Amino acid sequence: MSRFLAERYASLEAYTPGEQPTDMKYIKLNTNESPFPPSPAVIRAISEESVRALRLYPDPECGALKAALAEHFGFEKRNIFVSNGSDDILNFSFMAFCDGKKCGVAFPEISYGFYQVYADLYGVDAKKIPLASDFSVRAEDYLNVGRTVVIANPNAPTGIALSKNEIERIVASNPDHIVLIDEAYVDFGAESAVELVHKYDNLLVVRTYSKSYSLAGGRLGFAIGSEALIDDLNRIKYSTNPYNVNRLTLLAGVAAMEEHDYYMNHCRTIEANRAYTTDALTALGFEVLPSRANFVFARSPRIGGEQLYLELKRRGILVRHFKTESIREFNRITIGTLDEMKSLVAAVEEILTATGAND
Amino acid sequence: MSRFLAERYASLEAYTPGEQPTDMKYIKLNTNESPFPPSPAVIRAISEESVRALRLYPDPECGALKAALAEHFGFEKRNIFVSNGSDDILNFSFMAFCDGKKCGVAFPEISYGFYQVYADLYGVDAKKIPLASDFSVRAEDYLNVGRTVVIANPNAPTGIALSKNEIERIVASNPDHIVLIDEAYVDFGAESAVELVHKYDNLLVVRTYSKSYSLAGGRLGFAIGSEALIDDLNRIKYSTNPYNVNRLTLLAGVAAMEEHDYYMNHCRTIEANRAYTTDALTALGFEVLPSRANFVFARSPRIGGEQLYLELKRRGILVRHFKTESIREFNRITIGTLDEMKSLVAAVEEILTATGAND
Repeated sequence: MSRFLAERYASLEAYTPGEQPTDMKYIKLNTNESPFPPSPAVIRAISEESVRALRLYPDPECGALKAALAEHFGFEKRNIFVSNGSDDILNFSFMAFCDGKKCGVAFPEISYGFYQVYADLYGVDAKKIPLASDFSVRAEDYLNVGRTVVIANPNAPTGIALSKNEIERIVASNPDHIVLIDEAYVDFGAESAVELVHKYDNLLVVRTYSKSYSLAGGRLGFAIGSEALIDDLNRIKYSTNPYNVNRLTLLAGVAAMEEHDYYMNHCRTIEANRAYTTDALTALGFEVLPSRANFVFARSPRIGGEQLYLELKRRGILVRHFKTESIREFNRITIGTLDEMKSLVAAVEEILTATGAND
Repeated sequence: MSRFLAERYASLEAYTPGEQPTDMKYIKLNTNESPFPPSPAVIRAISEESVRALRLYPDPECGALKAALAEHFGFEKRNIFVSNGSDDILNFSFMAFCDGKKCGVAFPEISYGFYQVYADLYGVDAKKIPLASDFSVRAEDYLNVGRTVVIANPNAPTGIALSKNEIERIVASNPDHIVLIDEAYVDFGAESAVELVHKYDNLLVVRTYSKSYSLAGGRLGFAIGSEALIDDLNRIKYSTNPYNVNRLTLLAGVAAMEEHDYYMNHCRTIEANRAYTTDALTALGFEVLPSRANFVFARSPRIGGEQLYLELKRRGILVRHFKTESIREFNRITIGTLDEMKSLVAAVEEILTATGAND
């Protein structure tokens, strides 16, 4: 820390991204990326001509992409906000819609770690609501909560989803506060709340191209909400970094929408591989939470979470382990190809045997 | 504005990017982009293989690019910060290093419009220091100023540069405050202050790939400063959006450094075209400020700034006009290819004749 840094950031604990070691080639099941490449239309869209055009700024309005998203989701362009990944949109939302200590925010105690970082960054009073004993988010805990509500649905790192009806109860019961639903993982079998935006002006649904659209490296997220909410987000974007989405990524985003089935078919494959992984780990004695995401969250009574993580890493397989007390026996395992998941299961089996945990 | 927006942002006036009309094909001299494409190595780097790898997150550390920049500029990786364009870095710097009303900031009254936007966004008290009557920044106005100092060098939209010695005087006289030098346009003939970072821990030099590296659409900026300052910027980046630079852009950034001469040769071409444009406009009676940037700032006693802007636009040539009182007779004209500048000069000549201003 320099002697020039504003005091309020002195104790800030930043988010820790998943590790990206380069000492060997890993099977990478630790950052919830897609094992499948972007679709053919995306690969065609990033042509030599489009690379040569990188000399020009991107369209800060992201007009073509907004039009494609508006058509796909059945909204108007004015209901769509586009930015540099969903983290960017979450950041703007904590800045714009929580108003420091005045409004405050509520989110599940176990959820995406960045929510707490944003709350700290903007000095927002955060009410962290415990999960139920089965690690699910209880909708009733978020009724009439009198704060901005942020819920990842499906939740991370548990993978457990709320139904659209439960989301609607939460939104309807907090008419004077924003309810932000972070749908980063919704395409893997959960119900989206997007349609409810037609009905509620306090609902903001945040999406990303990073998971189901195989574009984590492109940096593209979007939000769907009332025109006024989208205006607010644009005000923040145009006051910070208006051109923040890469030109090639804008082309990729439009092209991906033209081949939507390609991506949804891959989501179905991930769901099948998730079922395989869940069954195999369950057969090995693991408790696997019922996931609607492209990962599973699993613990074994026979081996500690951190030990399993380290043993897997030693065998060239990266998964994500969190040190938070209530979930430290779990690992979050991204669902990759079937071959990758078979390698994972084989490695787990071997580890249980080698450590004598399989007796 | 929604009823949910935090009050403090209610009166925020966002930055207005240069217009990007699509009603016809324009000669685009309004946003200071390069007329030249990225270098061959950049075009090769964005291969089909690298597009397929967009399924993966970028390296949030930007390690390979930091190494390339560190080598090029003669620093260590720990002295380099990489982010989504220089706007992003300016944004983080106003957030981190101005500390609201406590520290405050000083910058030239006529300069990059975003400085005031950032000051407003973070509630920073901004002292706007008038330019000299010749539109230059007077170094002596920034000595012992007792605030964070932000200076674009060369300045925008005037194009006038301070010498490295003048920058050093400012940095040396403000040892307890950050001096941020925004060198977006430095490669077009001005002196960089980068070397002074070896000597002063309160100097932060901010650069962009958008102008001299033909990569405005890629979104890439970097800063060079003491390790502690870079740590502070990383703390903000990792608390907002750690993955904010596109994977392909990171590859492009490294490849561009391998072909540095390609870009510097183009900068020399831009300087030659700037000399041509300056001479031609001067011959038409314009006052053209002495520019060290890839644009000129010019006014004519014979036609108003806004009228000239509109007449040029009608003829398919976009330049940038600002409504600020003290500079409203000027237009900022990006330097493009020689053909583009000849078209501009011919159009100006025609306009002066057609409007009777050429009598």
